[in-house]
Amino acid sequence: MLTRLDVRLPAPASSERSYPVFLVGDGAVERRFAEELQRRMEAQAGARRRGTARAPRVALLTDETVARLHRGRYQQALADRGIEVVATVVGDGESAKSLATVEAIADSWAGARVDRETWVLALGGGVIGDLGGLLATLYARGLPLVQVPTTLLAQVDASVGGKCAVNLAAGKNLLGSFLQPRFVWADLTTLRTLSARDLCAGLAEVVKHGLLGDPGLLELLEERSGAAASGEPELMAELVARSVVFKARVVAMDERETDSAAPGGGRAQLNLGHTIGHAIESASHHAPSEQGPLRHGEAVALGLLAELRLGAKLGVTEPRLEARIRRLLAGLGLPVEVDGWLRPEVLARVGVDKKGEGATIRLALVERPGVPRLVPIPEAVLFQELLPPPA
Amino acid sequence: MLTRLDVRLPAPASSERSYPVFLVGDGAVERRFAEELQRRMEAQAGARRRGTARAPRVALLTDETVARLHRGRYQQALADRGIEVVATVVGDGESAKSLATVEAIADSWAGARVDRETWVLALGGGVIGDLGGLLATLYARGLPLVQVPTTLLAQVDASVGGKCAVNLAAGKNLLGSFLQPRFVWADLTTLRTLSARDLCAGLAEVVKHGLLGDPGLLELLEERSGAAASGEPELMAELVARSVVFKARVVAMDERETDSAAPGGGRAQLNLGHTIGHAIESASHHAPSEQGPLRHGEAVALGLLAELRLGAKLGVTEPRLEARIRRLLAGLGLPVEVDGWLRPEVLARVGVDKKGEGATIRLALVERPGVPRLVPIPEAVLFQELLPPPA
Repeated sequence: MLTRLDVRLPAPASSERSYPVFLVGDGAVERRFAEELQRRMEAQAGARRRGTARAPRVALLTDETVARLHRGRYQQALADRGIEVVATVVGDGESAKSLATVEAIADSWAGARVDRETWVLALGGGVIGDLGGLLATLYARGLPLVQVPTTLLAQVDASVGGKCAVNLAAGKNLLGSFLQPRFVWADLTTLRTLSARDLCAGLAEVVKHGLLGDPGLLELLEERSGAAASGEPELMAELVARSVVFKARVVAMDERETDSAAPGGGRAQLNLGHTIGHAIESASHHAPSEQGPLRHGEAVALGLLAELRLGAKLGVTEPRLEARIRRLLAGLGLPVEVDGWLRPEVLARVGVDKKGEGATIRLALVERPGVPRLVPIPEAVLFQELLPPPA
Repeated sequence: MLTRLDVRLPAPASSERSYPVFLVGDGAVERRFAEELQRRMEAQAGARRRGTARAPRVALLTDETVARLHRGRYQQALADRGIEVVATVVGDGESAKSLATVEAIADSWAGARVDRETWVLALGGGVIGDLGGLLATLYARGLPLVQVPTTLLAQVDASVGGKCAVNLAAGKNLLGSFLQPRFVWADLTTLRTLSARDLCAGLAEVVKHGLLGDPGLLELLEERSGAAASGEPELMAELVARSVVFKARVVAMDERETDSAAPGGGRAQLNLGHTIGHAIESASHHAPSEQGPLRHGEAVALGLLAELRLGAKLGVTEPRLEARIRRLLAGLGLPVEVDGWLRPEVLARVGVDKKGEGATIRLALVERPGVPRLVPIPEAVLFQELLPPPA
């Protein structure tokens, strides 16, 4: 006997899944945010026709640094609109990206009666965006998410596209999801509070976007590297906007990174600099170098250089691009000394990266600025080509 | 300055999200399963046009009891088709439904090179289906999932509809997701290996389905309660098929339990017996009664009786239904003595159930068999009406 029954699911309306990214540069930023949020929460509550009315509630997630700098004004603006806030502050840094943190926060939310009608606000950098995204994915099987990125890295990259994840002992970002936010609110005034190091780290992702899809953005950075590294406000607005436009285009064509036949290799092209960069970043956390654990963007800068060099060796990338990008990254205050990182124990981490596919890696490379290309490469070759020759 | 940029995501094609439930009752069940799986894995690999070819791989998740009874023949059938199997066996029971288990399994998968092309097979009961679903949701941001339910409860209910979750200290199923499987393979031969207690526990969900949407199913159970409680094979096939047909209809109209205006209250109607049942089940784990922790189905049986009585008190449910269902459940070997469970410390658990919405609960009730109805009820009233009068 074999019986077949079918579960037929309607496709969600495409309009529900598209979302705006707001760039807001001045004037009562948090008040306008609270307005936008309230409008959307009310629309959703109306659409769901729930039987029970009560004050709208948000679960605000942030870290210690951002709590000190920005939480107060956002929380006040929300309170002024009658929105209840359950605020959770986690410790700074990458170590918060764990399932243990997710579990502790979820337990505290349950105690604070965070429920299915609550919206999650991730107010912070990439780590907070990841944690907020994963909690919004899992808590009560899914809550609406709003990303309020407060670092350059999160504004130009992490807050757009829906990727979120936590780390495992076995590697970075191995458990996660694709959860598109309801909207992204890039408060450009928060960039003024970043340390020089964090600002520069964010510029590495802008360089990546320029390399992949916006050669003019590379030229702009080269012309104005000093202004970029010092966070000149108008330039920041342009860098964020051009990055978001590029990233949104890639995410729209291949949301879940499953269509490597899409132009440029689809979403997988965004891994440029990250395959090696993640390995270097993990290594810097497990066996810190002199400068301590690397920022994500710093590791990406090193990963970009390693992969540009590899691309040239493989005959994919134009040979002079590595030197050009090295000059640019150095001018932006980013680390460029990659050789010390290309050790077997670092490269071994590439194999357990979530993008691995057995013994062959599909590496995101560029031929020249604006021309991305995915290249399947056996791990053995990757090791051989990347390791510096024995002294 | 306020700039708006849009991320436009295409809707996934509806055909991709519908899936079949196969009921298979005799003859080389596992060989036909391996054929079906291989066909679907090859179709997916072709559709993705990946650059790297290697043997298809599955991550098989099961528990100790099912490993002893059924793993061997499934694993052999997969091996015969050239499918590599990474097998993980977790301890029996509800305690495996934790984030700690998810993390440990994910770490071991990373070591075994489970990657984005790997499919997850959940071979077991509800706990394994939950764990497999959550791992397939999160690992590498999503792997294809196949449910192979081996208990009556999982075949009639848990394996269909995509809900999966783990427990928190604060309550059951508080972290989870909706992940629809690629297909469900209900191997009816596995029901022969169930204990009488587990078989009867599964029948509680069949009673729930009858109450909500198939009055004839209730009559069938009443006429053949002895055959049901002893697992008569043809009757089991009919109970599973009718349950799946009903559940698929409800899930298709309200996949994510967000449309309480859908007929009968949408997917929320499936919470019948579960609001109180979950509280009783949690309580039985935290302070075990004489018979030890309750099976999920046993707690649902008690929850059904409590909610039918409550419905009658509220004037929603026809008064004689509680007695009728009490006779039926007792005839099916299920517990019916609910009064001892209706204590303040048990009912307090209802408030942190993931379906809670502040101080008002939307309770899934029935007016009479086949007529479900959602009723908003303040928690205070719920407590008052459910607590037995002081002696």
